[in-house]
Amino acid sequence: MVQKRDTEFRSPKTLSIPWVPIVRNISEIGQDNYGRLGLSHMTIAGSVMHGFKEVEVWLQTFAPGVRTPIHRHSCEEIFVVLKGSGTLYLASNSHKNYPGSPQEFPIFTNSTFYVPVNDAHQVWNTNEQEDLQFLVIISRPPVKVFIYDDWYMPHTAAKLKYPYYWDERCYETSPIKDEL
Amino acid sequence: MVQKRDTEFRSPKTLSIPWVPIVRNISEIGQDNYGRLGLSHMTIAGSVMHGFKEVEVWLQTFAPGVRTPIHRHSCEEIFVVLKGSGTLYLASNSHKNYPGSPQEFPIFTNSTFYVPVNDAHQVWNTNEQEDLQFLVIISRPPVKVFIYDDWYMPHTAAKLKYPYYWDERCYETSPIKDEL
Repeated sequence: MVQKRDTEFRSPKTLSIPWVPIVRNISEIGQDNYGRLGLSHMTIAGSVMHGFKEVEVWLQTFAPGVRTPIHRHSCEEIFVVLKGSGTLYLASNSHKNYPGSPQEFPIFTNSTFYVPVNDAHQVWNTNEQEDLQFLVIISRPPVKVFIYDDWYMPHTAAKLKYPYYWDERCYETSPIKDEL
Repeated sequence: MVQKRDTEFRSPKTLSIPWVPIVRNISEIGQDNYGRLGLSHMTIAGSVMHGFKEVEVWLQTFAPGVRTPIHRHSCEEIFVVLKGSGTLYLASNSHKNYPGSPQEFPIFTNSTFYVPVNDAHQVWNTNEQEDLQFLVIISRPPVKVFIYDDWYMPHTAAKLKYPYYWDERCYETSPIKDEL
């Protein structure tokens, strides 16, 4: 069946973001859990969604216990923690053929942290009392995420999830309404 | 006189940011006004300072009345307003040979705004009662800023300020102590 893209979004290859309002109220930007209970994800500035080509900014809130998958990506990634606390698990053993046991880094309100390019990592709200909220800044959007089942899975076995959940939603297609 | 770079910093061309702690407390990151009264600038993640290659994140606070120069740069730029309110002045007349009278956009706590690549703009804390605080995310660091004296100065006359103030500080040189 011939399909077309949702008309609200266009390919980042063809857009010059003329229709994104210059100023937006963050509390009015759509958020979703993308099927993960306790997650709130909001794309503040997106590649697929808004046409940014070089950076992307997300606002995410993790309820207690919520965590990312163990994953890697070949972009720069910087976090600014706005609320709560938790743990960054980071495996920098890029010379092994699997991530291996990660280092644990406490993260906390008003901290910033980064993930070295291609290092396997996981962000986990390990605070049972409080939501963890942070801004995420990535380069080279849209993000291409390789997901590991565990820290001992070979790098080569990690599964590419692309487009990632929030980008995938933008690419969702709907049948053309054939008026004939 | 032969000079060397401050040993605290290295050229972004040669570094792989191994010495930047993964997690840092933002309240312990150095800030400075770089000669502009009422400005507080903090490089949370920097190119020259920390070795990031693709994105840079700043935290800036403007006292009432403080404003940026009228300027442009050929990078993507996204703001997240944490506190206060003010005005973005933006001239998108890239087809004229000068910026021309800018549009005014109110900015406010919990808003996000962006500046289209190469558009002349100015961010101004026009709220006389309150500080304006925001995160700034730019691509293609380090930033190359072209500064206009006014909105009717030709684009070609805008003066390049490079390195910009906070990057310049990183490049400051000191004479080698010649032990002989």
